[in-house]
Amino acid sequence: MKILRTKKAASATSAAWRRDGQSVALVPTMGYLHDGHLSLVRIAKKRADRVVVSVFVNPTQFGPNEDFERYPRDEKRDFALLRKAGVDAVFAPTPEEMYGREGATVSLSESALSTVMCGAQRPGHFAGVMQVCLKLFNIVRPDVAVFGEKDAQQLAVLRRMARDLDVPVKLVGAPLVREGDGLALSSRNTYLSPEERKRALALSSALATAENDWREGRCDDARRAVASIRRRIAKAADSVDYVVAVDKDTLEPVERLRPGVLIALAARFGKTRLIDNHILR
Amino acid sequence: MKILRTKKAASATSAAWRRDGQSVALVPTMGYLHDGHLSLVRIAKKRADRVVVSVFVNPTQFGPNEDFERYPRDEKRDFALLRKAGVDAVFAPTPEEMYGREGATVSLSESALSTVMCGAQRPGHFAGVMQVCLKLFNIVRPDVAVFGEKDAQQLAVLRRMARDLDVPVKLVGAPLVREGDGLALSSRNTYLSPEERKRALALSSALATAENDWREGRCDDARRAVASIRRRIAKAADSVDYVVAVDKDTLEPVERLRPGVLIALAARFGKTRLIDNHILR
Repeated sequence: MKILRTKKAASATSAAWRRDGQSVALVPTMGYLHDGHLSLVRIAKKRADRVVVSVFVNPTQFGPNEDFERYPRDEKRDFALLRKAGVDAVFAPTPEEMYGREGATVSLSESALSTVMCGAQRPGHFAGVMQVCLKLFNIVRPDVAVFGEKDAQQLAVLRRMARDLDVPVKLVGAPLVREGDGLALSSRNTYLSPEERKRALALSSALATAENDWREGRCDDARRAVASIRRRIAKAADSVDYVVAVDKDTLEPVERLRPGVLIALAARFGKTRLIDNHILR
Repeated sequence: MKILRTKKAASATSAAWRRDGQSVALVPTMGYLHDGHLSLVRIAKKRADRVVVSVFVNPTQFGPNEDFERYPRDEKRDFALLRKAGVDAVFAPTPEEMYGREGATVSLSESALSTVMCGAQRPGHFAGVMQVCLKLFNIVRPDVAVFGEKDAQQLAVLRRMARDLDVPVKLVGAPLVREGDGLALSSRNTYLSPEERKRALALSSALATAENDWREGRCDDARRAVASIRRRIAKAADSVDYVVAVDKDTLEPVERLRPGVLIALAARFGKTRLIDNHILR
């Protein structure tokens, strides 16, 4: 497995593969990998001849009072996991390598999808996500990029960016991965105390109940489903940021539950903000 | 010469060339071509195996009170000129093909270079230019793109975009082309009455005088040079938008004239706004 530290090395590596007629998949991550990330790698390996994983805690998608500094990092462990998973190259640049000493004066914004849900609580977050992903796409020039549906809003925003800017990369969404007890995998789970972690199970169980109620015909009213989920998680969480039922592509609120509806939520346990969601199929 | 009307056709044409190991140059234009554009084509032909010229009057770079509707168009003549110039393909989409029915919700902005000079009078102009160029780059995926130094600020903004977003396209600047009497070539010259056209010669003659005064050691003080140009063109124009002496890359004002300084101006003759500039070498 190649370890690439510069944009130039990443571009050159990918270009050499392309010249050999090999297709390239990119899996963008912020590291501190878990089985969710490794599921993205497995999907990427099926989609392309070569897989590049980027490991970069992107400063521009964190707000000034967010957890950029304390975001968990363990490069050695990440690289070992990726090597074992059969990844061809890892791209792990420094922030200075990515953005230069002067920083960027060109920025991106999205007006329809990125101001609701997580975007409402995290102004500038999706601008930073679009910026770093567009840069990664331009550096690696992959045929395919794989993103987890755990970050459902991120995927919707990036798909919109790809559409609006004609980005020549196929974006693939990968199903959310859960622990055995239902907790959605997240690098931020490491922040949770054992007691908080236990309470956090309310998120997945509330989503599972809503899914069951819909599948068994007991509730297809979106407002009632959302209220019911909010009631359940409010009991367990220290605060509830949002619970919504929206179209998974437009993120516009829906009245009736149906396949393609994204039920998404964010809540806080202690100092830790967790997100979870379920897409009805 | 292929005439491509869809993004899909443009992507496929360019992809087929790349698969054959051929390099591709793009010359983005808004059509109504003149010898300045054809000089870009000649440079593009030297830089790559295949040349694509886009002909697209981009609505997103025009302000609500600007000349989008009346901007001159003559596709038949443009295509004949490009065929004669040995262009391999012309990409001439409709606005709906480029932006879709819903339009774009993702936008770009540039904070350092695009708010001065023409950007001060044309808010949103360079955001539209960046947007359409990034789309064209993503569609055609050229190795090289050629832009005229006539639009010196546009070139500086696009170079900044390419740097900040790691756009994998080499941007090449091509020298400004003038009529025999000194008037800078522009599709908008067609708006000028004979009397306005005559007065507009003050722009190039004021720039030429400043260049001579600098080269012969009479004036290297940027403020004095700018004041002198402003005085000369104020006599001829109906109004002067700006005259500046700036670094050609950062667009920051300079105190002393030196190679790499861009002297740029905009002025109005009747309803027509003309720009002109000179880069000291």
